[in-house]
Amino acid sequence: MAESTLLTDLGTQIIIPVCALVGIAFALLQWYFVAKVKVSSEKSDAKNGFSEPLIEEEDGVSDHAVVRKCAEIQAAISEGSTSFLYTEYKYVGIFMVAFAVVIFVFLGSVEGFSTKPQTCTYDATKLCKPALATAAFSTISFILGAVTSVISGFLGMKIATYANARTTLEARKGVGKAFIVAFRSGAVMGFLLAANGLLVLYIVINLFKLYYGDDWEGLFEAITGYGLGGSSMALFGRVAGGIYTKAADVGADLVGKVERNIPEDDPRNPAVIADNVGDNVGDIAGMGSDLFGSYAESSCAALVVASISSFGINHEFTAMLYPLLVSSVGIIVCLLTTLFATDFFEVKEVDQIEPALKKQLVISTVLMTVGIALVSWIALPSSFTIFNFGVQKEVKSWQLFLCVAVGLWAGLIIGFVTEYYTSNAYSPVQDVADSCRTGAATNVIFGLALGYKSVIIPIFAIAISIFVSFSFAAMYGIAVAALGMLSTIATGLAIDAYGPISDNAGGIAEMAGMSAVIRERTDALDAAGNTTAAIGKGFAIGSAALVSLALFGAFVSRAAISKVDVLTPKVFIGLLVGAMLPYWFSAMTMKSVGSAALKMVEEVRRQFNTMPGIMLGTQKPDYATCVKISTDASIKEMIAPGALVMLTPLIVGVFFGVETLSGVLAGSLVSGVQIAISASNTGGAWDNAKKYIEAGASEHARTLGPKGSDAHKAAVIGDTVGDPLKDTSGPSLNILIKLMAVESLVFAPFFATHGGLLFKLF
Amino acid sequence: MAESTLLTDLGTQIIIPVCALVGIAFALLQWYFVAKVKVSSEKSDAKNGFSEPLIEEEDGVSDHAVVRKCAEIQAAISEGSTSFLYTEYKYVGIFMVAFAVVIFVFLGSVEGFSTKPQTCTYDATKLCKPALATAAFSTISFILGAVTSVISGFLGMKIATYANARTTLEARKGVGKAFIVAFRSGAVMGFLLAANGLLVLYIVINLFKLYYGDDWEGLFEAITGYGLGGSSMALFGRVAGGIYTKAADVGADLVGKVERNIPEDDPRNPAVIADNVGDNVGDIAGMGSDLFGSYAESSCAALVVASISSFGINHEFTAMLYPLLVSSVGIIVCLLTTLFATDFFEVKEVDQIEPALKKQLVISTVLMTVGIALVSWIALPSSFTIFNFGVQKEVKSWQLFLCVAVGLWAGLIIGFVTEYYTSNAYSPVQDVADSCRTGAATNVIFGLALGYKSVIIPIFAIAISIFVSFSFAAMYGIAVAALGMLSTIATGLAIDAYGPISDNAGGIAEMAGMSAVIRERTDALDAAGNTTAAIGKGFAIGSAALVSLALFGAFVSRAAISKVDVLTPKVFIGLLVGAMLPYWFSAMTMKSVGSAALKMVEEVRRQFNTMPGIMLGTQKPDYATCVKISTDASIKEMIAPGALVMLTPLIVGVFFGVETLSGVLAGSLVSGVQIAISASNTGGAWDNAKKYIEAGASEHARTLGPKGSDAHKAAVIGDTVGDPLKDTSGPSLNILIKLMAVESLVFAPFFATHGGLLFKLF
Repeated sequence: MAESTLLTDLGTQIIIPVCALVGIAFALLQWYFVAKVKVSSEKSDAKNGFSEPLIEEEDGVSDHAVVRKCAEIQAAISEGSTSFLYTEYKYVGIFMVAFAVVIFVFLGSVEGFSTKPQTCTYDATKLCKPALATAAFSTISFILGAVTSVISGFLGMKIATYANARTTLEARKGVGKAFIVAFRSGAVMGFLLAANGLLVLYIVINLFKLYYGDDWEGLFEAITGYGLGGSSMALFGRVAGGIYTKAADVGADLVGKVERNIPEDDPRNPAVIADNVGDNVGDIAGMGSDLFGSYAESSCAALVVASISSFGINHEFTAMLYPLLVSSVGIIVCLLTTLFATDFFEVKEVDQIEPALKKQLVISTVLMTVGIALVSWIALPSSFTIFNFGVQKEVKSWQLFLCVAVGLWAGLIIGFVTEYYTSNAYSPVQDVADSCRTGAATNVIFGLALGYKSVIIPIFAIAISIFVSFSFAAMYGIAVAALGMLSTIATGLAIDAYGPISDNAGGIAEMAGMSAVIRERTDALDAAGNTTAAIGKGFAIGSAALVSLALFGAFVSRAAISKVDVLTPKVFIGLLVGAMLPYWFSAMTMKSVGSAALKMVEEVRRQFNTMPGIMLGTQKPDYATCVKISTDASIKEMIAPGALVMLTPLIVGVFFGVETLSGVLAGSLVSGVQIAISASNTGGAWDNAKKYIEAGASEHARTLGPKGSDAHKAAVIGDTVGDPLKDTSGPSLNILIKLMAVESLVFAPFFATHGGLLFKLF
Repeated sequence: MAESTLLTDLGTQIIIPVCALVGIAFALLQWYFVAKVKVSSEKSDAKNGFSEPLIEEEDGVSDHAVVRKCAEIQAAISEGSTSFLYTEYKYVGIFMVAFAVVIFVFLGSVEGFSTKPQTCTYDATKLCKPALATAAFSTISFILGAVTSVISGFLGMKIATYANARTTLEARKGVGKAFIVAFRSGAVMGFLLAANGLLVLYIVINLFKLYYGDDWEGLFEAITGYGLGGSSMALFGRVAGGIYTKAADVGADLVGKVERNIPEDDPRNPAVIADNVGDNVGDIAGMGSDLFGSYAESSCAALVVASISSFGINHEFTAMLYPLLVSSVGIIVCLLTTLFATDFFEVKEVDQIEPALKKQLVISTVLMTVGIALVSWIALPSSFTIFNFGVQKEVKSWQLFLCVAVGLWAGLIIGFVTEYYTSNAYSPVQDVADSCRTGAATNVIFGLALGYKSVIIPIFAIAISIFVSFSFAAMYGIAVAALGMLSTIATGLAIDAYGPISDNAGGIAEMAGMSAVIRERTDALDAAGNTTAAIGKGFAIGSAALVSLALFGAFVSRAAISKVDVLTPKVFIGLLVGAMLPYWFSAMTMKSVGSAALKMVEEVRRQFNTMPGIMLGTQKPDYATCVKISTDASIKEMIAPGALVMLTPLIVGVFFGVETLSGVLAGSLVSGVQIAISASNTGGAWDNAKKYIEAGASEHARTLGPKGSDAHKAAVIGDTVGDPLKDTSGPSLNILIKLMAVESLVFAPFFATHGGLLFKLF
């Protein structure tokens, strides 16, 4: 019997929900602050939306019309986003039900739908619950995961569309005020998602425990359905949202900026509302679902490995819930970190924005290191064993601390490298901007090269994390390293959501016809947002790599494979084909964006040609048709890539068996990570190279500009090429690798029993 | 004792050199036909370069000045190419000597430079030659491989620069005549290289045998140096040549076509000679070295595995040399195939060119299938055993026939798929062309998506070949499958070299001021050449994948690793980092092309600005400076990517050991193949999308054109982006994966003995 932990089981049962509730309360408090900015279209609002006296007096502040206009635009964006998400959820709802049936039937058939208890998989001396129960509970947790994911995305979108106009209005008072509103709104989303994910998982575990009792192996196997549900919704959210936003963006830019020479977000552009809707459904709802999925999956991967390690065998509840305790402390750490941005310091100047956001990353990482040490000290026995492909490996608590910490710090390194390669404050983006001098072609060549190069350090960081955590605690180490990287998810999401909110705020300022000063402020917020968006994607990809590996390990354990030997033909062809899947997937999504954008371009051109009043400003463009084109295209186009990802593990598992499937998972993991990082950094760099030329903040930048110069036109082409890379293909790829892994894990019992038909036949 | 083969050892000793000599004789015969076209700048040439009466009468045929002009341009191109290759060889010569020393020292140190015989690696009951002998002979075969590779590349270049102007002059008589000259010249190169490679390898084996006697294990281990030598030269050739050609091409296009609106190959463009030199040093010399390297490596991989299989153990000389016999028959098959293009049928119309070239692929594949069956029947015992990671696996001769045949046919499939995705006769390229309607950005997006998509079928074809050959005959099966794909190398090289020769011919026609009719004919030859170039790259990549895997298997066997388990941290981080290397490498080479192109652009602009007579045609541009810029840039820029590839296996092997190195090799293989295929197809598609718009051969194409339209400008940007992808990064990547594998194999004894320092330390 192992020694007990400092923290009692009762303490654990209290700490986790309390931390989750504190997180939710904090999110609501932030919302309260954001809500104090009034956006009303009623004339009777005497103070023009402000209940406090204004700090700075600006033009337009006392203008009723502007506030009304903002409210109108906000309503249009919110309506478009809501209606898109409803349409999306209608379709994925059907999928969810169908897939729930597949899960139940496949898993139930493992033991022929027998209701009798069976011998446990890892301990033949004991009896476990029947496979049918695991089938039923896996199905339930799948649905719960899917619903939580959908709610997370939806809430995020609602918050963002609530905050965008408020940020615009606050920008009239100064850049600092606007920053706070945007940041607080991001925090609402970050904390709600993190706390919500934790709370639901905690409740599900406790409810399932009522049935499973001491059969922890079965319990946590059933829980993995939660991760699958979360990630499959995230996939559709990312793909559909990504196609939506980029079809609208590319379509709006190609006609508006390139052909008609009107600025971005000009209200005369018929696709402008669709473009702003896209930011909310793609970047906000998609990212929210994505990171929630990663969080759910890494928790599930850790729990399933722990259940067959000494924690599970000895029924040490506190040690078992170590992953959830880490996340709980993470919420408190992020709460403190947020105060540094909103209360302890104040952003007053434009050039303080990026450092303020960067400081968030550093502070949360430093504090979290202490937090992890604390949790590892109180919640773990000083020594325990972890299941390692058939054998139990001894691990010390300080080693597990190092596993989590190495993931956390690898995340920070990835964040900084991403910033270096995508911020226009450094030479890589400036070199790309400089290459615009010789035209779009060199810009594209340099941008692609930058993306490829930006892969190097993150891969080394991930490799080192894997080596350290793998060596110390096998697949459990990898899973908690992923959790470490995601432990500051609330802060990560806050600074990530901040980007699209600022982007929308800028769009609203432009559309409402606010002065150039306001637009400059929102532009500054937005430029920092591009970099934080890239950082957020870096985190998402890095954690996805670790999560997938952990899930892969759990799958291999569950499928009872003792080794995945590259030197067997079954595995090698899996590796090769797996490495190809990200390309296939990217081809689909990029082509989808391209085709949808072409439709959008035709519609926008048609409106400009048939309604000459639009360009003169005397006629209102038909925004709704553009919104409809994006919606229809993205729903239609999400099916094929979604099917590729969801069906591949099933087909490979059923026909080729678990060895080939292992190869496919490993191949898609090592190949997908590279494409995902390079795609998102290339896109971020092009976007900021364009912004660098537009802002003209240095001598060098001014030689390339101004807006409309040949170099600027070349930069716009790069930016447009980057759109589907950074917002559709790239971020969807990390879901591809995670989802295939978690799906394989859920179906592992089925594949192990009935899989590999083709090889059995010959 | 196994049964003997139908073919006696004496027969083998006769057949191989005879086939090689027949190949060389055939190449000389083709050269004789090409040489009949006279290019003379002497006025005394009464018949203007023709010794036969002309079939068609064309303008310019009787013009002395045109012939003289062609001769002048040809001389300039030839001189530039020769001087570049001399410079390149000077630098790689230094590298070669240094690396030869490294090989000798590292391998010699395995047994502490002992001159005493040692027990054999695979049969501890016998005594083998000392490690020092293997070190010495490996060094010698490395140098021989390097020198053969250099000679192959150089000869190819000489032939191409000899043939280009002759093709131009023949184009005056009709497209059929021009086609024959270009094709025959390609055949000269194809047959010389194939026969030369075979003959040198055959002689080396027989010479080494004088020392090694019955120690076949040591003999064929030493022979692997030949593959390493061939491939390391190919790497530098591809990288330097690729940077050279694309810096010149991109630089010439950006200023000439885009800024000054002068046609391609206009003699007023100062970079035009550099551009034409580039075709010869990049596409011809580089491709020649590359395929020679693949051929040498796959032979070496097969031989080294065979030496420790029953062929080697029982000293069955004929069966041992099965790989060389397959290549010998390949030469005869290709000879027959060539006659179908030059003698049995005649190309009369422009639209017969592509089918004629495609027919070459089909005919050679069908005939070769019969050839392989024959060789397998007479040169193999009906049953034998093959070394399979520690155990001997029984193989039937018909199974080995299937291994070779599956590789051969996979090559044909890859060829056809490549054609489908890069020829403008099919919808993929037409869709890309269509996307130019909305500008360069959509063109780039669609092109990238096309490249990604084009990976799918080739990967399945490679995966099936691997599965079949791996299952039948383990790593020996993979090696002979690679040989199967390369068995028609003479034909492959012929149709591949045909492309750049036609490209040059078109350039010379333009520069010599020949009529539009002539230019149209050379353009038609060139368009078919773009597709065949892409097919050639497809072959090169597909065979490289198989070769690398075979080498990887041989390395694993030699390093005495029994499995490469992805589920060990050492292997997994290798896999992840290995999958990153192609990105790192591509970032370097693309950036190099970009930077070199920028320098070229500045020089070309400078000349146009400071020498106004150039545009008016009254002043001759300074071609030499442009040639020098390309030469200097490519030599300087080849070092870093070359070092990355050459040093990685050494560093990983020495510090991390053979397991991690196995991971790196597998990772770079599965990831590199995808990037290589997608890069070369994307580039080919963009090039032909542009040509599709320019040619305006269909209703659809005419709505996009003509030259100079917005859609055409967008297409030119895509073409320019594609240049470094298809001619620098893409084709270099297959050398990256092959070279790292063969280098690991050569150094395997050293790594196995002294490697993994870092892990030994902790």
